[in-house]
Amino acid sequence: MGVQRLTGGGFADALSVLCGGEIPADLPLIASGMIGSRQGWVEAPYCKCPAGFDAIVAALTSVPGTRLRIVPGLMFRGADEVPDVIRGEETQVFGALSETIGERRVIVLPGTHSKWVIAGPGGIETFATFMTGELYAVLREHSILGRLAVAGVDEAALDRGVRHSLRQGAALTHDLFSVRSLALTEALAPKGVADYLSGLLLGAEIAAARIWLARHGREHATVMLLGDDALLTRYRRALALADIDSVIGPPDAAARGLWRIARHAGILTNE
Amino acid sequence: MGVQRLTGGGFADALSVLCGGEIPADLPLIASGMIGSRQGWVEAPYCKCPAGFDAIVAALTSVPGTRLRIVPGLMFRGADEVPDVIRGEETQVFGALSETIGERRVIVLPGTHSKWVIAGPGGIETFATFMTGELYAVLREHSILGRLAVAGVDEAALDRGVRHSLRQGAALTHDLFSVRSLALTEALAPKGVADYLSGLLLGAEIAAARIWLARHGREHATVMLLGDDALLTRYRRALALADIDSVIGPPDAAARGLWRIARHAGILTNE
Repeated sequence: MGVQRLTGGGFADALSVLCGGEIPADLPLIASGMIGSRQGWVEAPYCKCPAGFDAIVAALTSVPGTRLRIVPGLMFRGADEVPDVIRGEETQVFGALSETIGERRVIVLPGTHSKWVIAGPGGIETFATFMTGELYAVLREHSILGRLAVAGVDEAALDRGVRHSLRQGAALTHDLFSVRSLALTEALAPKGVADYLSGLLLGAEIAAARIWLARHGREHATVMLLGDDALLTRYRRALALADIDSVIGPPDAAARGLWRIARHAGILTNE
Repeated sequence: MGVQRLTGGGFADALSVLCGGEIPADLPLIASGMIGSRQGWVEAPYCKCPAGFDAIVAALTSVPGTRLRIVPGLMFRGADEVPDVIRGEETQVFGALSETIGERRVIVLPGTHSKWVIAGPGGIETFATFMTGELYAVLREHSILGRLAVAGVDEAALDRGVRHSLRQGAALTHDLFSVRSLALTEALAPKGVADYLSGLLLGAEIAAARIWLARHGREHATVMLLGDDALLTRYRRALALADIDSVIGPPDAAARGLWRIARHAGILTNE
């Protein structure tokens, strides 16, 4: 339903609606994501990275007067002391990996704020956020670049944008202007503008993420993608242009993750 | 007055207003900027770079039924065949440099689309556009980052943003998220959010421009800044953090440039 729309204590009512009415008193409940943010029902403070099941379970936050537990988000502080945060995606990662998280994996969760996650036997080790989706939305809707676009799908334009941002010496704030200069000189058709812009941003994300992966010794990893089909198709295409192999993860990763966290917490009454 | 507001042939009327009424029939007129764009009065096609006074004068475009000439914009095509364009700033550059353009100079014109220009004895050699101002405006007004900001000036936050983007391994689409994560952890005060965001974007521009300057053998050049005072003060501050020396150019560079181009064109009837 979205926490932004549930202001002023509508959470309990929203939960009943989601559960189809009266909630049995002995039914355990678990949730993750923005419901645990400062704007959510009860704030579930961020848990430090690296974090495995034990740390997550220890940081579950109960909502008073209910049997609902909220999964904490994760915080990572790098050497530069600038924190990065994740909330909701950690649950998807725990659901996407094998139960034991036996090997180190790279998981990418595209979206408004795209997340790249490295997880291993100890749980989620580190992650990095890229504002690709939000940048695309604000530039498409509110900038001079978006005004040049007409509706249309143009895979060649997407590839061109990705390649331009992957090239040696790419610089996003400069390269974004090529949307305008190419359109102006009719070297980019109006129906290709949106996908070229999308490609530039996606390429910039992948170029930066590739350096980040190398810093963690994972530059040759096959990445697992989690998210909705249309977006994953675009990401697979762009990743291939950067010679990064990818596989699509389970579509129900969030539900699987909640189930596993609940089991580790011992709140599955029927087990 | 702005070409966006003068749709449907209001240009002649706007010109009379600007000239204070009736325009003497023998008065030569010259203009530059968006008036010569496709959305302007008459399109003055882009002139190829490098371009000196002769090339500019040869490409002046007359407005039928008037004595008005419009200065062309400039187009530069790099090795990657992606064009860059400038319209209006070329006139400021011609006005800011000494009449003979005796030495190679780097001129920076901050704004919605910030322009870095290299000019020498042969005129304007090359330039590069950075969408810094527009990115700031759309992120400030329409993104989750802008919603974290409260009004305020915070020079330390500006510097912090600039330094973060100047560091080795900076990546803008990732670093922008630090506005949110720092604000969330109260490591950045709400009144510093706007200036920190501005600093990140300014630092990204300068980091990329520094590489661009090096490619043209101008990495040790003192840059000349043209534009409005408040913006130039921010740029000087940011440039100093990148160890780039700067001087402020003449505030009337546009008028000087138009005058010089008119003189080279031989349209100053009293000379």
